[in-house]
Amino acid sequence: MVQIIADRRDVDFNLYEIFNAQELCDHKKFKEFNQKTFNMIVKEARNFAIKEMLAVYKDGDEIGVNFEDGTVKVPDSFHRVHKLFCENEWTAPASNPEFGGQGLPYMVAGAIKEYMMGANWPLYAYASMGVGTGRMIETFGTKGQIETYLNKLYTGKWGGTMLLTESDAGTDLGALTTTAVKNFDGTYSLTGNKIFITNGEHDLCENIIHPVLARIKGDPEGTKGISIFIVPKFLVNPDLSLGERNDILCTGAEEKHGIHGSATCSLALGSKGNCVGYLLGEERKGMNIMFNMMNGARLSTGAQAMAYASTAYLYALDYARNRIQGKDLKDILNPKAPSVPIIHHPDVRRNLLWMKSYVEGLRSLIYYTLNCMDRSGCEIDKKRQEKLDNLIEILTPIIKGYSSERGYEVCIQAMQVFGGAGYIRDCPVEALARDCKITSIYEGCTGVQAMDLLGRKAGMNKGAVFMDFIGEIKSVIEKAKQDENIKDTAQRVETAVNRFHEIASHLGRKTKSLEIDVAFAHATPFMEIMGDICMAWMHLLRANTASYKIAAKPKKRDRDFYTGQLKTAEFFIHTILPVTMGKMDVVADTVSTAIDIPESSFGGL
Amino acid sequence: MVQIIADRRDVDFNLYEIFNAQELCDHKKFKEFNQKTFNMIVKEARNFAIKEMLAVYKDGDEIGVNFEDGTVKVPDSFHRVHKLFCENEWTAPASNPEFGGQGLPYMVAGAIKEYMMGANWPLYAYASMGVGTGRMIETFGTKGQIETYLNKLYTGKWGGTMLLTESDAGTDLGALTTTAVKNFDGTYSLTGNKIFITNGEHDLCENIIHPVLARIKGDPEGTKGISIFIVPKFLVNPDLSLGERNDILCTGAEEKHGIHGSATCSLALGSKGNCVGYLLGEERKGMNIMFNMMNGARLSTGAQAMAYASTAYLYALDYARNRIQGKDLKDILNPKAPSVPIIHHPDVRRNLLWMKSYVEGLRSLIYYTLNCMDRSGCEIDKKRQEKLDNLIEILTPIIKGYSSERGYEVCIQAMQVFGGAGYIRDCPVEALARDCKITSIYEGCTGVQAMDLLGRKAGMNKGAVFMDFIGEIKSVIEKAKQDENIKDTAQRVETAVNRFHEIASHLGRKTKSLEIDVAFAHATPFMEIMGDICMAWMHLLRANTASYKIAAKPKKRDRDFYTGQLKTAEFFIHTILPVTMGKMDVVADTVSTAIDIPESSFGGL
Repeated sequence: MVQIIADRRDVDFNLYEIFNAQELCDHKKFKEFNQKTFNMIVKEARNFAIKEMLAVYKDGDEIGVNFEDGTVKVPDSFHRVHKLFCENEWTAPASNPEFGGQGLPYMVAGAIKEYMMGANWPLYAYASMGVGTGRMIETFGTKGQIETYLNKLYTGKWGGTMLLTESDAGTDLGALTTTAVKNFDGTYSLTGNKIFITNGEHDLCENIIHPVLARIKGDPEGTKGISIFIVPKFLVNPDLSLGERNDILCTGAEEKHGIHGSATCSLALGSKGNCVGYLLGEERKGMNIMFNMMNGARLSTGAQAMAYASTAYLYALDYARNRIQGKDLKDILNPKAPSVPIIHHPDVRRNLLWMKSYVEGLRSLIYYTLNCMDRSGCEIDKKRQEKLDNLIEILTPIIKGYSSERGYEVCIQAMQVFGGAGYIRDCPVEALARDCKITSIYEGCTGVQAMDLLGRKAGMNKGAVFMDFIGEIKSVIEKAKQDENIKDTAQRVETAVNRFHEIASHLGRKTKSLEIDVAFAHATPFMEIMGDICMAWMHLLRANTASYKIAAKPKKRDRDFYTGQLKTAEFFIHTILPVTMGKMDVVADTVSTAIDIPESSFGGL
Repeated sequence: MVQIIADRRDVDFNLYEIFNAQELCDHKKFKEFNQKTFNMIVKEARNFAIKEMLAVYKDGDEIGVNFEDGTVKVPDSFHRVHKLFCENEWTAPASNPEFGGQGLPYMVAGAIKEYMMGANWPLYAYASMGVGTGRMIETFGTKGQIETYLNKLYTGKWGGTMLLTESDAGTDLGALTTTAVKNFDGTYSLTGNKIFITNGEHDLCENIIHPVLARIKGDPEGTKGISIFIVPKFLVNPDLSLGERNDILCTGAEEKHGIHGSATCSLALGSKGNCVGYLLGEERKGMNIMFNMMNGARLSTGAQAMAYASTAYLYALDYARNRIQGKDLKDILNPKAPSVPIIHHPDVRRNLLWMKSYVEGLRSLIYYTLNCMDRSGCEIDKKRQEKLDNLIEILTPIIKGYSSERGYEVCIQAMQVFGGAGYIRDCPVEALARDCKITSIYEGCTGVQAMDLLGRKAGMNKGAVFMDFIGEIKSVIEKAKQDENIKDTAQRVETAVNRFHEIASHLGRKTKSLEIDVAFAHATPFMEIMGDICMAWMHLLRANTASYKIAAKPKKRDRDFYTGQLKTAEFFIHTILPVTMGKMDVVADTVSTAIDIPESSFGGL
């Protein structure tokens, strides 16, 4: 059977052969599960994604959402599938079972999400965004808030959002103008306008719980004066039934490049002077609380891009195996030679292998990070836990920034494999490319991820976190160097990592000098390089695992798969990593041209 | 005034300071023109593009074309502008005045086209595609055919197309199944189905002249059995009035990723057994004749991509100068510091300069090639003419393949500058990105350009053409090395070009060996490298020209412009060319991974 969305063999390779999800079941947190139950759950998720979610994807893309009179209607066909999605309890696979979650490891939840996001992200997000809102309430809310909202959010009955952006406060949230005034009853009255709110209004859930960033009147300017409030669309009665409609109104839904099935709304708060909000956590701690959720959203966005890329790759691969066009290169002059599937053509093979190397490298990097989250959740040694949490922190901007960029390029290259057919709306990868473009933009665009990496993460704990990161790679290299099959490849990665360490230190020093501007002009290239290094690391780990498995003389199907891993690692490390070496020369050189050029010399005036 | 579509200062820099279009007026072919008339014409074209064509662009994107009952309707607003376009004689600026063309140099026509393609390519193409058809008839047609079709095509009264693709014959035209049978009167009866035909049917022109690739019954299989026929939508009476409707019917118009205003049609020929075609040129010479036109179409496609990129860059630049968001990096901890335009932020500057370097490098490469065409047209020394024509030949796949890929990336980076606003349909760059994607797909996708370059062009005349190409670059390097301001930069280009020469020879040898498959797995990377080398060459030429002009102490506005050229060259050569060095290491290494990997190891089964 042709694989759709994600190659199940590769998902299992990550889960059970590289990162050993089954070992988590030894821990009491996951003792109710075993590899068999994991398998069953992933299988069900895959079936549901393909049979139900993918089947209505086109409705989202073609019909889109319909804004009228303050309401947003999703395509009719979304309703049945959304209901099934919630009934089958797919909303919160890794959340706390006490509040309606399924308590699965993040890694297994990651496999579920891959299929669902690749099949129909807009539909998936309506049900799942409430989990982000819920997690924030679980972490920072009062007992009463937890009791009021959590179960409804984790079970998809109510939706969630995040109201950050305003027309003059995008990347710079400190500039926001939404205000909150404390009332006598301890609630707050909010006034302001928010834009670009994913799922800000829709007709799939009976209520929507909006976390809203706002400034309490009199609080300081900038980010340190920001608080966060829970603003429900319908106020909630003490018996948890729905009360009055709150004064938060949808004023429009955007027409977009892609994700047409997802409602991107503008919302007016307090236009009648009566928008009720409840403080979440302490006053003026809004940014901290928001970032706690934002980190999860960024990892999820990286995974979203990878899911699109994986889906696009599998469509392109299937097309390349079946599309007959042209002769084999060596038969080009022989008129009697048969036409062949385009996967025979060297340039198509190169392109497919290029796509494969990113899809699988990104998948492993994401599962690696989810594995860190799972291990952190089981860890009792605080120091070891902190180390895992810090690795997650340093990898988050890479997963968001690098995966969204490379994932998009994979979608675009998939269009290229289809040729003219790839430009037509009927072609499944056409919409994937449009949808994927959002991932490099929302939840902090690529440049913001690069600044987060260089400005905050790379220097965390005086560089100790960075050294742990390098250490993780070096331990893989050391092991791979023992393996005759991949020794040379491992040495190439070692050279690259050593060089990377040098340029990271060099650039880090510049961020602390008068040349801070110049350093940050190299932030995005630095993030790209670190992403490449992560890919090389993951491919070496994959190749090492595959090489070990091949030695046990597996059946043909498995042997083909493992051979694919060795070849993909070789491809990435021998044909992409040398280009990264060139990129590192540029960072080492750190020219100041982008800073020096006068503004008028950019032209256009 | 803010520049739109193309920066006129840069257009003039290319026309008059780098490539000296004014000198062409010394030749009798262009003696009626001078720099002043060129300027006036470009100014008029720019006004027309902005005021008329750009004004109706959104109608094309949003309304699109409407297929019904064999007819295709373009948006209503296109009719008036198309009529003006033809009346103002913009259809055939560089064509033979004897037949309705304007007889301008290709370089000046290139400036006109930049504005028009950037403003509204779909509308532009309805009128201009007839020129491609016309040029083919002018070159290969009989006197009668020239008299019948040429003036109508060059003046836009009749449209033109090219009917190549069939559902099983895309890249491999040799597989086409459209047949032609010779009738007693010397005409042919055609039968077949063509797809993806740009402007195959529409209501803007009174007639459409289709050049059709088909195989005469009994002729050999493959490309060598292909002939080309003129198939008019309406047959033409001896007095040039329109006669009977020919049996060529539009069966559909595609819904596409972009260029919604352009009709991409499927056409059925001879479904009633009565499709009349007239042989163009000799029987079985169809591929040669088609390629003659295709080369022009490929250059034009590269220019189309550059025009999109230039337009997107100028929109992004203007936004970056006006969008206030965040503080300067050095004031980040000062709550009193003002918010600034985002062009102050290092990552935005880097991104803008990256875009600028491609837009301007590509523009110069295209004007260089147009200049070769102009000089070839004036040349009486056959040897010198041949040399120029060969340079055009070797540059054609670069301009098509490289410009379409980089031009698209520029559009995507422009979206990124807009952030969330870039993903919204209201944002002008959103549609540009979708439109630009077609350029890497049609007229031979990027992989086809790469194969053309490596398989045909790089080895032309036993490598003599390639050596001429290298010689052209070296002469620019030699001159730049005399200039103290750019000596170091010139040396970097020299190192890169020498290395490029080595790897080109290396890869060329492989194409003639048993490792031909492996060589061709590096065809696209090789084309990318050669494109980078061309950019470095052009930037050095630009910087050298600018440096010379700065020495003459020009006014501030000009000095700013020239400084921009020096900085852009420095940026490209110091931060992009080192990455190219890495790419060259990969080609030198020529790993065979993409060929070696077994098909089943790509996964997905």
